[in-house]
Amino acid sequence: AVVDKGVDFANYFCTYAFLYHQKEMLSDRVRMDAYCMSIFKNKHHFKDKTVLDVGTGSGILAIWCAQAGARKVYAVEATKMSEHARQLVKANNLQGIVEVIEGSIEDITLPEKVDVIISEWMGYFLLRESMLDSVICARDRWLKPTGMMYPSHARMWIAPIRSGLGNQRKNDYESSMIEWDNFVDDTHHHYGVNMRVLTDSYRKENEKYYLQTSLWSNLEPDQVVGIPAIVMELDCLTATVDDIRSLNANFSTSISMESAIVAGFAGWFDVHFRGSQSNPAQHEIELSTAPSRNNPTHWGQQVFLSNPSFIVKGGDKITGSFSMTRSVENHRLLNVEFSYHLQKSSGQLLNSTTSRFYID
Amino acid sequence: AVVDKGVDFANYFCTYAFLYHQKEMLSDRVRMDAYCMSIFKNKHHFKDKTVLDVGTGSGILAIWCAQAGARKVYAVEATKMSEHARQLVKANNLQGIVEVIEGSIEDITLPEKVDVIISEWMGYFLLRESMLDSVICARDRWLKPTGMMYPSHARMWIAPIRSGLGNQRKNDYESSMIEWDNFVDDTHHHYGVNMRVLTDSYRKENEKYYLQTSLWSNLEPDQVVGIPAIVMELDCLTATVDDIRSLNANFSTSISMESAIVAGFAGWFDVHFRGSQSNPAQHEIELSTAPSRNNPTHWGQQVFLSNPSFIVKGGDKITGSFSMTRSVENHRLLNVEFSYHLQKSSGQLLNSTTSRFYID
Ligand SMILES: Nc1ncnc2c1ncn2[C@@H]1O[C@H](CSCC[C@H](N)C(=O)O)[C@@H](O)[C@H]1O
Ligand SMILES: Nc1ncnc2c1ncn2[C@@H]1O[C@H](CSCC[C@H](N)C(=O)O)[C@@H](O)[C@H]1O
Repeated sequence: AVVDKGVDFANYFCTYAFLYHQKEMLSDRVRMDAYCMSIFKNKHHFKDKTVLDVGTGSGILAIWCAQAGARKVYAVEATKMSEHARQLVKANNLQGIVEVIEGSIEDITLPEKVDVIISEWMGYFLLRESMLDSVICARDRWLKPTGMMYPSHARMWIAPIRSGLGNQRKNDYESSMIEWDNFVDDTHHHYGVNMRVLTDSYRKENEKYYLQTSLWSNLEPDQVVGIPAIVMELDCLTATVDDIRSLNANFSTSISMESAIVAGFAGWFDVHFRGSQSNPAQHEIELSTAPSRNNPTHWGQQVFLSNPSFIVKGGDKITGSFSMTRSVENHRLLNVEFSYHLQKSSGQLLNSTTSRFYID
Repeated sequence: AVVDKGVDFANYFCTYAFLYHQKEMLSDRVRMDAYCMSIFKNKHHFKDKTVLDVGTGSGILAIWCAQAGARKVYAVEATKMSEHARQLVKANNLQGIVEVIEGSIEDITLPEKVDVIISEWMGYFLLRESMLDSVICARDRWLKPTGMMYPSHARMWIAPIRSGLGNQRKNDYESSMIEWDNFVDDTHHHYGVNMRVLTDSYRKENEKYYLQTSLWSNLEPDQVVGIPAIVMELDCLTATVDDIRSLNANFSTSISMESAIVAGFAGWFDVHFRGSQSNPAQHEIELSTAPSRNNPTHWGQQVFLSNPSFIVKGGDKITGSFSMTRSVENHRLLNVEFSYHLQKSSGQLLNSTTSRFYID
């Protein structure tokens, strides 16, 4: 699938050209603390080194790297935000070290290879936005053989959850179908046209919107009712685009509550800053987007509703497979499939289910 | 400016591919009644005629034309909504008369010229979406010399209004700037980076968003404080794309209330279905989107806030000029400029002002 750059800009990059949007990311304390600590607690990774910041946005990561002692930082940004990054670099007196380059990382050229590639490329449930592709491209072209990635590792997690969202969305879905029925009656009555034949199509459109599209949510830890399972682990130094283009994993999760109604699954990610094998971090930092009372992130979790919800007891297991592919229409959006059954502690198998979702 | 079709689809057409969006238009009673009446009270315009429906969406207008006695209706739709239109035509037993063609009107070919072109092409403040370009293109290629346009005429109106929206948006704008200041302090304090230098750019971004972007609103008639003025009149049979690419008009409006605080201007439109000079409508129908208590439309009015607001008395006049051009980045969006002063009944001139707005 060839990506039309103009379309990609209209759909994806345009939002990043707003300071408002950059500010939202810059206000996410968990995100900011993790990157800041990963750099300043591991200054030996940056002192006198050359660094590439892929998608510098406001320039924040590039500036930190320079403050931590980098000799040279290339800060590449596809949107006009590059101009603000340049302003910010100058106002913080780092124009001798940080060079802001406007362009997509796929198109630009650097005068040298770098020791470190830093980037904040993570989207909802890690891979939405598919920006890791660009970081991999940068790595293959511009990282020295001895170089390291910041972050160095990433993982995707899923867990069964309880939540009122399930019933809420089902109610919204049902109301919208009742409203449709009224609309069909009215249109027939007032305007002499019978639209009943579109009811199935409208139902499909609504199912997709209300039930099959994952929801952003910041869950409380006690909404997680089973032991979280890892469905993907990634070494940023070696991962290829093929590794992430489609994922498949088996999972099994034991119910950790006495009893609960499972509304569906939540998906989230964490990344780690470990440096490289030959030059490990002195202080290993973790950035986690797991459900958390005190440390929510702007990423939150993605919720995939089960339809219908089902009852579980402590000791039951949910076992199955998870897969993720890219949307054919827009490579930055994802399709997810859960296939699972409930294994009672008695050994009985129940609720064999396959559900598909869109991360839009 | 060459329009990239892929980008145009991503930005514009995609929404029309949802039944949800078509349903919103099909639920607008004022819109529906006007088109329905214009057709069924003027059946002589359709009986045994050939019709072209530009942008048929669900197919509703094409179906009405067929029901009114058309010999043949070509129903052209750029999006996959064409498939639903085809279903609907068949379910209403009109597949012998209505031919649904998927494609943009600019690209498709018809086997014959037509007697009537019908289309619901109007966007916010008439010209947003620039779909009239496509209707003009269709007319120049496919309308018989004796043919007629449905609607046949269109007008744009402006009037000074009072509204709480002005203060609300100014408050929102100011809160957002206070929040920015806190953000700058926090970022400096916690993360050692001074973002103060971006304050002017953030202010501009926020001014644009909160103060210089027109607002959708359904105003009450008594919020209109001056006699509405026409800033554009258009004969759909003869208008060219050059006529609408940029507009310039002088206007003058007399305050019709004893006293009021003017929060800005509202803009709206109406269209008429008059048939043609040689074959006029028997019942002339008007579709108006003016402020109205009982007949609001999904178009509402566009509100352009004056900054600051100003006091007027009965008999005062607001006199000035209005202009509208297309956004350079997206030809379907508009830029508007108001230049005006207040002429007191004493003859004194006050508040000479020029303000620019975006219709996004
Ligand atoms: N292929 C690419 N080339 C250059 N910039 C890209 C890119 N893909 C995404 N980006 C940019 O990467 C940024 C990701 S958001 C992160 C911004 C900044 N590094 C911070 O941590 O605050 C956006 O500004 C986006 O425009
Ligand atoms: N250039 C073009 N060619 C074909 N269809 C177009 C078009 N520009 C806009 N459209 C379509 O025109 C429709 C306008 S909305 C009106 C829909 C329908 N006629 C009704 O009155 O309910 C949308 O469905 C849009 O996809």
